Amino acid sequence: MARIVMKFGGTSVANIERIQNVALHVKREVEAGHEVAVVVSAMAGVTNQLVAWCKEAMPNYATSEYDAVVSSGEQVTSGLLAIALNNLGIKARSYQGWQIPLRTDSTHGSARIQGIEGDALSKDLSSGTVACIAGFQGVSPEGRIATLGRGGSDTSAVAIAAGIKADRCDIYTDVDGVYTTDPRIVPKARRLPRVAFEEMLEMASLGAKVLQVRSVELAMVHNVRVFVRSSFDAPDAPQIGPGGLPPGTLICDEEEIVEQQVVTGIAYSKDEAQITLRGVQDKPGVAAAVFGPLAEAHINVDMIVQNISDDGTTTDLTFTVPVADYERAMATLRAGNGAIGYAKIDGASDVVKVSVVGIGMRSHAGVAAKAFAALAANGINIRVIATSEIKISVLIDTAHTELAVRTLHSIYGLDQA
Amino acid sequence: MARIVMKFGGTSVANIERIQNVALHVKREVEAGHEVAVVVSAMAGVTNQLVAWCKEAMPNYATSEYDAVVSSGEQVTSGLLAIALNNLGIKARSYQGWQIPLRTDSTHGSARIQGIEGDALSKDLSSGTVACIAGFQGVSPEGRIATLGRGGSDTSAVAIAAGIKADRCDIYTDVDGVYTTDPRIVPKARRLPRVAFEEMLEMASLGAKVLQVRSVELAMVHNVRVFVRSSFDAPDAPQIGPGGLPPGTLICDEEEIVEQQVVTGIAYSKDEAQITLRGVQDKPGVAAAVFGPLAEAHINVDMIVQNISDDGTTTDLTFTVPVADYERAMATLRAGNGAIGYAKIDGASDVVKVSVVGIGMRSHAGVAAKAFAALAANGINIRVIATSEIKISVLIDTAHTELAVRTLHSIYGLDQA
Repeated sequence: MARIVMKFGGTSVANIERIQNVALHVKREVEAGHEVAVVVSAMAGVTNQLVAWCKEAMPNYATSEYDAVVSSGEQVTSGLLAIALNNLGIKARSYQGWQIPLRTDSTHGSARIQGIEGDALSKDLSSGTVACIAGFQGVSPEGRIATLGRGGSDTSAVAIAAGIKADRCDIYTDVDGVYTTDPRIVPKARRLPRVAFEEMLEMASLGAKVLQVRSVELAMVHNVRVFVRSSFDAPDAPQIGPGGLPPGTLICDEEEIVEQQVVTGIAYSKDEAQITLRGVQDKPGVAAAVFGPLAEAHINVDMIVQNISDDGTTTDLTFTVPVADYERAMATLRAGNGAIGYAKIDGASDVVKVSVVGIGMRSHAGVAAKAFAALAANGINIRVIATSEIKISVLIDTAHTELAVRTLHSIYGLDQA
Repeated sequence: MARIVMKFGGTSVANIERIQNVALHVKREVEAGHEVAVVVSAMAGVTNQLVAWCKEAMPNYATSEYDAVVSSGEQVTSGLLAIALNNLGIKARSYQGWQIPLRTDSTHGSARIQGIEGDALSKDLSSGTVACIAGFQGVSPEGRIATLGRGGSDTSAVAIAAGIKADRCDIYTDVDGVYTTDPRIVPKARRLPRVAFEEMLEMASLGAKVLQVRSVELAMVHNVRVFVRSSFDAPDAPQIGPGGLPPGTLICDEEEIVEQQVVTGIAYSKDEAQITLRGVQDKPGVAAAVFGPLAEAHINVDMIVQNISDDGTTTDLTFTVPVADYERAMATLRAGNGAIGYAKIDGASDVVKVSVVGIGMRSHAGVAAKAFAALAANGINIRVIATSEIKISVLIDTAHTELAVRTLHSIYGLDQA
């Protein structure tokens, strides 16, 4: 007997038929003897309609009222799922964020979870009742409804799993797991049976959009085992596979991963633009003068590279920003040249970041050298290199994306047999 | 400066444009210096969609989950109205039933209000914030969302008006007030500037469907002045009329009605079917044997007439039931004849109840006689007569409805000049 949180997104609950299919998935787990809490999103399309109404009423709506309006979508699904479960003879009840309560801060529209009082939920689960929980929402210190921001249902699910000490949090998605890379680029990509939290964090934030980054962070902090699987599986399909689980990917502590690969996957992100400041004064305070104004303009800076200066007086500073913010970032930096003091500003928006990710590379030398050699052999110029303990990222021209990803996927032995 | 509750139904908030029109009505009251709480229904059509989803998921859904689903409609409107008010530069915030809190019992789907904690609302109103309240809903002792049943938004509005000691509860409806009778039958019907609670109760339950009966009962108990007016009035139309109010009908204590008419209005109800049991034993316990099984079958019995028996052993018993329950009632009574012991059962579903209503008839003799004479003069046969202190009801053949209503409207001087 285990305690499981199951999470279903908008397309999985798009209509009553799909909700009834979700109920069958839940029934299977209940009949296997598990205690189940289900976290649901709004029915596909509903949230967009609600957001459109808010905008129509006022372009700059109050986020607290936006939350009251938009959170109703998940509320509806939670009640309908409870009804669908009752219809299968399963005890179930709906829970809104304020009923758990799932407490958040007051940042309406993108609130952060502050805590979960899991006692009422746990009591219901112990008595054999399935809790159908409206995802994406909580209650603020002022007693107002607060939403966690788009994709917040993943975060809700993981937070609730932590709050009720669940054995596992199953995320049902459009895909059947986490792959070694994007299968649209590399047909030989393989599904990973297990991925470490840290790897998933790098994969997710680098473009493998299976799970919200926030939810992976939360899972890592609270050590919640997250299992990503397809919501299109037949509810009565055999539930066997690696580790006794059905086809999917378990995101877990690295200690649970017995046979670690050196490299787990190749991620890429096209949402990058490169900016280079040349002839920057090499003195304290310059970095602050560059990145302070960008932060104030709410522009996220990603890769930052600065080399030792040749002459001890000036250096070059390169970093990336989201493509959508590229022009605004250039304008901000041009306006700030007085304070920064650079000779020249360069940039490019037709660049892609390709990353090699793997827990195993901590203990294996030569992983980076192998990548650089392979890229060079294929005539791919590397603009910027940035590394962390478990990943190597390179910035290259967009035109070389597919070639680079395929090459790296192959040289680290990730191709399917 | 007054404290006002304003209530708008589904057609008044059917889309963003209509909600913005509601906001203009609210703005007018705010600019007149009033403290305003607004109670809103779901956008027209939304509730029906939500109910349809519940039924699709399971024909016999749990009412607690129905409540979670359906209450979301009012939640959306409350947030959108707050946004629309903000857009006009007016401070506003939404309130759900559980946020007030408006406490109900646990009868999900048709909960009764147990109490309102008006302190938070009152504080907001005093500080110049407009409270946009989701109607139709409250929170049960178990912390679940509970709806008050269809039309419950009127009841919410009156209960909230009582809870925050409002000077008036303005109900914006499809019609511009309460009329002496149905204007579709009697073109000379007049709008009543004022109606006493008791009269309105008789008018409402007898077919003049302007306000929910429950809301009028509640208004009477708590002495909440209810003003019925049209939501189609231009928000910037002049706000003058009898008693300083715009065109509409004030439902109030009879003491506020200076010039009382003997008869205030003529109501009728086609939703009646007559059942007569002939040769019923005239002994204790028979009434219970008749009406007990009907109550168990959830059939509401209305007019009940039993005459003194001729011979002291048997009597005839006549009563009415809703047309939709007629066949079921007949079957129930036929099955129960052993316990009741009647000689014969008769019935008719092509009957109408016409009622003469007026507080003034308490102190005026001859009102009933005048009605009977007028009906007889027009060749209208009276099947059943039932009277209370402030009304006389007769059951007649449906074919005579219009003639009877017009005749009575005329003889009591209700026709427009």
